[in-house]
Amino acid sequence: MEIKLASNYGFCFGVKRAIKIAEDYKNSATMGPLIHNQDEINRLKNDFNVGLYTNLSDVKENDTVIIRTHGIPKNDLKNLRKLNAKVINATCPFVTTPQQIVKKMSSEGYSILIFGDADHPEVKGVQSYGEDQDDVHIILEPSDLEKITFKNNKIATVAQTTKKKEKYLEIVNALILKNKEVRVFNTICDATFENQDAARELSKEVDIMIVIGGKNSSNTKQLHSICIENCPDSYLIENENELDINWFLNKKLCGITAGASTPDWIIQQVVNKIKSFN
Amino acid sequence: MEIKLASNYGFCFGVKRAIKIAEDYKNSATMGPLIHNQDEINRLKNDFNVGLYTNLSDVKENDTVIIRTHGIPKNDLKNLRKLNAKVINATCPFVTTPQQIVKKMSSEGYSILIFGDADHPEVKGVQSYGEDQDDVHIILEPSDLEKITFKNNKIATVAQTTKKKEKYLEIVNALILKNKEVRVFNTICDATFENQDAARELSKEVDIMIVIGGKNSSNTKQLHSICIENCPDSYLIENENELDINWFLNKKLCGITAGASTPDWIIQQVVNKIKSFN
Repeated sequence: MEIKLASNYGFCFGVKRAIKIAEDYKNSATMGPLIHNQDEINRLKNDFNVGLYTNLSDVKENDTVIIRTHGIPKNDLKNLRKLNAKVINATCPFVTTPQQIVKKMSSEGYSILIFGDADHPEVKGVQSYGEDQDDVHIILEPSDLEKITFKNNKIATVAQTTKKKEKYLEIVNALILKNKEVRVFNTICDATFENQDAARELSKEVDIMIVIGGKNSSNTKQLHSICIENCPDSYLIENENELDINWFLNKKLCGITAGASTPDWIIQQVVNKIKSFN
Repeated sequence: MEIKLASNYGFCFGVKRAIKIAEDYKNSATMGPLIHNQDEINRLKNDFNVGLYTNLSDVKENDTVIIRTHGIPKNDLKNLRKLNAKVINATCPFVTTPQQIVKKMSSEGYSILIFGDADHPEVKGVQSYGEDQDDVHIILEPSDLEKITFKNNKIATVAQTTKKKEKYLEIVNALILKNKEVRVFNTICDATFENQDAARELSKEVDIMIVIGGKNSSNTKQLHSICIENCPDSYLIENENELDINWFLNKKLCGITAGASTPDWIIQQVVNKIKSFN
């Protein structure tokens, strides 16, 4: 079995930065999981005593609280500061950007449209920066626009960093046809595209494709859906324990990619296990 | 031969308004042809003594000069005012809008992209309002973007009022993928769409389609290209003298539409002549 890694995979800039920040603040805790990867969270706990808050109410005065890459809603940040917690902001700069855009645009009288999952923490954070919460709208499909009544005829739009650009353009096109001004901010992250493009290319040439990443991670799920289009034998796993030797029967070339929250040490363990099947 | 008129055709709001202005200012003259229709220009000359300047140098002090629907470049307007001419502005309000957008956006540090014909008077006028003329770009196709180097990474874009929205979206999509902010102003005029949609529908049900309008008018040529897709026997004529009885042999239903610069009295003469073929 030959193994080939995608030309781009794994940690993005924002995740590398957040992990470095967490390692620098021993004995702190993150507000929610720092990244979509339980194994890496365990490593930070074991090696750096970086814990996890699940609720704002867990935080005590003078605690050191790390804000994760997705960011948090504006009022949660305000409440943390009220508690006199030491707030370390590991929000990805590419997520801070749409937060600030939504703040500025809504203060200038634009209706806000966010392309993303309303339940995703990143989107909840971005949404919270709108001045008029009744005029911040979140959609996933162009057809969702039919249900929306914008308060203004000037629309500003941002996208969740991990979304697909093609769908964003569909939504933007529908907006342009119905509104005099549409201010389009392309906040989709290039890192996501680079991993996706590399996964697409690699999945065309392999017999089996292993996608390593959190099963609740948007960008990992997208990598998997891209791979499965070209290579039906594409499997999404969180670590080497989920590998099944039967997947590899009669396969010659195995491609590997990993989501933006997957650390290199997990990828290496997967590679080693696959090699052991030979 | 049955004759059916499109549900929308002919003069748009801006043209009706400009002709009314010209009729109100007898013994004036327009800077360039008021609209793309020689017959209507002749009528204004004969009935209201509204003449025609071909050059700024034709204008003398205290002349009454009518600016046509397409507008004129900013400096030409300034020069007219310097001559102490009485300037009557019949620029279509839907053309004044992109002029003002280009002025405002370039003063705010946006690079400007105009989707339109660089040689069209409307586009020349809109272009002239850019503060940095080296950063006002005019294109007709998405592929033209490859030749452009914008000075900023914020782009503001407007379209010539008579252009096709589908092509505008293609250009906008290409811009969004390469720039962090694209501020899209949909300056394409609804009247153009309404005439186009009606022509499209009618051309599907008729045996022959007559498109009446100036042969150098963008919007008339677009009506003709839409009709010919559905009805190969689609003819573009300027007036009833160009009708050929042979076109109508063995035809049962004749559809009629007209460009935004075509007066009702010309359409009526065409209808009368076709009826006389029976």
